[in-house]
Amino acid sequence: MQDIAFQSLVHGVYVVTTRSGDRVNGMTASWVSQVSLKPLLLMVSIAPTRYTHDLIKASRVFAINVLTAAQVDLGKRFGLASGRRVDKFAGLHYITAATGSPILPQARAYFDLNLIATHTAGDHTIFVGEVVEAKILHSEELSQVFSYEKYF
Amino acid sequence: MQDIAFQSLVHGVYVVTTRSGDRVNGMTASWVSQVSLKPLLLMVSIAPTRYTHDLIKASRVFAINVLTAAQVDLGKRFGLASGRRVDKFAGLHYITAATGSPILPQARAYFDLNLIATHTAGDHTIFVGEVVEAKILHSEELSQVFSYEKYF
Repeated sequence: MQDIAFQSLVHGVYVVTTRSGDRVNGMTASWVSQVSLKPLLLMVSIAPTRYTHDLIKASRVFAINVLTAAQVDLGKRFGLASGRRVDKFAGLHYITAATGSPILPQARAYFDLNLIATHTAGDHTIFVGEVVEAKILHSEELSQVFSYEKYF
Repeated sequence: MQDIAFQSLVHGVYVVTTRSGDRVNGMTASWVSQVSLKPLLLMVSIAPTRYTHDLIKASRVFAINVLTAAQVDLGKRFGLASGRRVDKFAGLHYITAATGSPILPQARAYFDLNLIATHTAGDHTIFVGEVVEAKILHSEELSQVFSYEKYF
């Protein structure tokens, strides 16, 4: 019952990326929200079991790529496998943002962020990032709204 | 430019309510996200200038009411005025949740929460709540996706 109620919350679909040394990685996340206006801050909540969790802790930078309504396959590509075992960027073109995080040029928009705080929240960690750069790449597209049916 | 990019983030529209003593109040918020599975935790980011901010700090309980796609007027009612000056619940029927927070029976769903942590994030405060109860009230309705044009 509670699980079904949680599907009434509105989340987008994002690929959260980072770079640590020569290693780039990314994961699909939907628990993303703006949390401050001045300065512009975003949060993403990530499970400590995820490889991206460790990489962001090490690099203290990340980027949030906003997927378009049509990019369900891209969301699955970054959602299912672990970057510990496979290179999720293999064969994909990416742009390197100011912080070094990889940006997917097909994303609707992206936010390049410096990590400024982490907070444990139950079985996840809240990463709060300050925006270094925010850019719309495809204004003609709509942002994807997460739906359980599309992914599970 | 950054402001426009922020409109690509996907948020819902929620009325965040609380009770402190005999006083009930609520405010419209869109910066809401799930942040943990076990336990079920939600966060909402609220500016310290808001009356609801002070009331939640005092009461340590709050509820999140999920507005339906059609409930823009309800979102405006709880978004524009301050509960310091007007009783936003005047003339509205509400249900009292387990924590004492008021629930709008016309909402699509609600979450009744105990405050477990607060974190300063720039010009806002992140309130993290643990779910006491979550219920769908109107499964036939869709959750409202925030859009700037509807509110400003």
